[in-house]
Amino acid sequence: MSTIISVDTSDIRFPTSQQLDGSDAMNPDPDYSAAYVRIATDADDDLEGHGLVFTIGRGNDVQTAAIRALAPRLIGRDVEELLADMGGVWREFVWDSQLRWLGPEKGVMHMAIGAVVNALWDLKAKRAELPLWRLLAQMTPEEIVDLVDFRYLSDALTRDEALEMLRAAQPGRADREAQLLANGYPAYTTTPGWLGYSDEKLDRLCREAVADGFTQIKLKVGGDLDDDIRRLKIARDAVGPDIRIAVDANQRWDVADAIEWMAHLAPFDIAWIEEPTSPDDVLAHAAIARGVAPIPVATGEHGGGRVMFKQMLQAEALSVLQIDATRVAGINENIAILLLAAKFGVRVCPHAGGVGLCEAVQHLSMFDFVAVSGTVEGRMIEYVNHLHEHFVIPTEVSNGVYHAPSAPGNGMEMHAASRAEYEFRG
Amino acid sequence: MSTIISVDTSDIRFPTSQQLDGSDAMNPDPDYSAAYVRIATDADDDLEGHGLVFTIGRGNDVQTAAIRALAPRLIGRDVEELLADMGGVWREFVWDSQLRWLGPEKGVMHMAIGAVVNALWDLKAKRAELPLWRLLAQMTPEEIVDLVDFRYLSDALTRDEALEMLRAAQPGRADREAQLLANGYPAYTTTPGWLGYSDEKLDRLCREAVADGFTQIKLKVGGDLDDDIRRLKIARDAVGPDIRIAVDANQRWDVADAIEWMAHLAPFDIAWIEEPTSPDDVLAHAAIARGVAPIPVATGEHGGGRVMFKQMLQAEALSVLQIDATRVAGINENIAILLLAAKFGVRVCPHAGGVGLCEAVQHLSMFDFVAVSGTVEGRMIEYVNHLHEHFVIPTEVSNGVYHAPSAPGNGMEMHAASRAEYEFRG
Repeated sequence: MSTIISVDTSDIRFPTSQQLDGSDAMNPDPDYSAAYVRIATDADDDLEGHGLVFTIGRGNDVQTAAIRALAPRLIGRDVEELLADMGGVWREFVWDSQLRWLGPEKGVMHMAIGAVVNALWDLKAKRAELPLWRLLAQMTPEEIVDLVDFRYLSDALTRDEALEMLRAAQPGRADREAQLLANGYPAYTTTPGWLGYSDEKLDRLCREAVADGFTQIKLKVGGDLDDDIRRLKIARDAVGPDIRIAVDANQRWDVADAIEWMAHLAPFDIAWIEEPTSPDDVLAHAAIARGVAPIPVATGEHGGGRVMFKQMLQAEALSVLQIDATRVAGINENIAILLLAAKFGVRVCPHAGGVGLCEAVQHLSMFDFVAVSGTVEGRMIEYVNHLHEHFVIPTEVSNGVYHAPSAPGNGMEMHAASRAEYEFRG
Repeated sequence: MSTIISVDTSDIRFPTSQQLDGSDAMNPDPDYSAAYVRIATDADDDLEGHGLVFTIGRGNDVQTAAIRALAPRLIGRDVEELLADMGGVWREFVWDSQLRWLGPEKGVMHMAIGAVVNALWDLKAKRAELPLWRLLAQMTPEEIVDLVDFRYLSDALTRDEALEMLRAAQPGRADREAQLLANGYPAYTTTPGWLGYSDEKLDRLCREAVADGFTQIKLKVGGDLDDDIRRLKIARDAVGPDIRIAVDANQRWDVADAIEWMAHLAPFDIAWIEEPTSPDDVLAHAAIARGVAPIPVATGEHGGGRVMFKQMLQAEALSVLQIDATRVAGINENIAILLLAAKFGVRVCPHAGGVGLCEAVQHLSMFDFVAVSGTVEGRMIEYVNHLHEHFVIPTEVSNGVYHAPSAPGNGMEMHAASRAEYEFRG
């Protein structure tokens, strides 16, 4: 038996706004940041669980304070007991009645719970000497559904239905794991498309993306229509007709704006329109989806939790579902969302980039392929070539695919030197 | 000209869990708390702006930290300029791109913005020597719509439509203000209905409520069906057939549970069923509303913001809209919600109780009656007889009505002695 002896947090901020990396129509000058947590035990294995919440600068201190507020619930706890019942851990935190008031199940406190839950998953995977995707993909259907809280989901997905889907996917797991290891998981790149880049840089990065083997790129839009048309022309000319181009409005529009704006961009053959409006607006997304058809609507990086995703699916408000590694309450809730997407037959193309999001979210897509949806058709994980050097297990992306990580853990562990160098001191 | 010289926060907690005051099916042991903010200026009038966020205990420190994170934006600012453009103030905070990432527009950071916005409204009302309801009710329709951000609302309500409604209500303002001052604003009481109370206490408090002039009471339900039936029988016997009894499940159910449970409670003549399920689940509320008709569905105390209320109205998911004084980003956003409710012809019955919620939210209902909806039909403000003694301008409720406050301010100012006595020290 071992116990948790410390829960340390760090407020880590990278000065990305200096290069306009990450600039879009709503976020002109983000400083990519992480509210970081490290859970240590008294076991003699030296293993720690690491987790984080990605933010874009100001307020990272508030997010860190929220994680710190959870520490008293962890210190002194029996590690084996916690790790043996990760579904119970999720419920213990999410259903703490007093903390729940601060959301419920959304915003700063919900993301803080996600960081802690993910740090425990990191520790569990390291103890099992497995990358997280493989740890999850080796669990039985029964163990997987035990991770998920089906409260509020039963009008769309019951525990029994989830179990049935997971059991149906079981026979093909070994084959798909072999395919994953051989071929990797498809990626697309947002590297060329930030709003703050010059036309020349856009053109150059588009050509580099194709040369690097990507078959889809993404451009930020929604600042100025004439600029968007000019930039899309540059991008389309650079990549040719066979590469898909998605666009991302980062919540910029109301319903009518979105439909009108997209009518102007449609001639450039748009792979999807992402975050056209408020991420909480299921009915607006549904109206936009009808209005811009056949262009698919994508959303989810700010999706507050499983209840919002359930409604987006029920209302046919999206046809590309974008999970995010640190927006919801951790791995468990993202598994609930993957199960919902599988039930509705909607493809999942995770949001990534930021700080450590690529490193983290690939585990979920790979688990999904092996054990849940069983397919990569139309699916791909976002990729942005920023800040990977700070991670102990950096993503390996080449020829347009993510290569499955083999090192143990959830991928979120940052080098101690990076944490020290970018620690924010106000 | 004067400038803001300090923004002080306090973590104030009342040990209400000792009496089971406030206990319901989701919140067995709340410690009613306030993340409190005081804004001081260098003007020689000694006036301060006070605001708060109501929480139920753990995490109040996180909420206080979030308010504190906003202070640097306020210190040194020109007070007259801020108070002259409260719509601009709202947008400045809500559209801060980096802080926005932490919601967006929901949870801890959004409520923190609400506390600051409300503290500025308090200062503005005190400088005008008016209670907030009257300050708002004296603004022109143009000034009122300038307070509101119509982004994401235009598919349901445009600025022009809001302006038209406010202009149509203008001629009757003086009459209705006189009515309000003469008759007060209807109240209902939740005092009898907490789950943790004994049957004897329930019976006694129900009878007291009727004796005190209330025409509606509310009971918590959703813990155990047999208990609910027994308690409703006690309550109905105590109050007789003419007093309305609403019930509140505090998010306890999934869709099917809610419909089935309410079928068992319907014989007791239920005034409304409140928060039957997740507050973010528009589609589930709509399904429940169809399933429990003609019992009205009420929700809103955890409504994340104007986008959620807009959808609840569009989907006919509620027929009683419950604003809350500290859940959204302050007075401005609640005005947006009041305008939406008026557009859809839905009655507003605010959530109150907690710490200072009665004191604060009455201003919104009174403003709504005088200048927006122009009616009190079917409308009433929740009342709970807790903790009022800690406020400088405590609510005056008698004969089942709130009496309109005449003292300047937003009602949130707590006595310095109370703040000192209940300051939480970990």
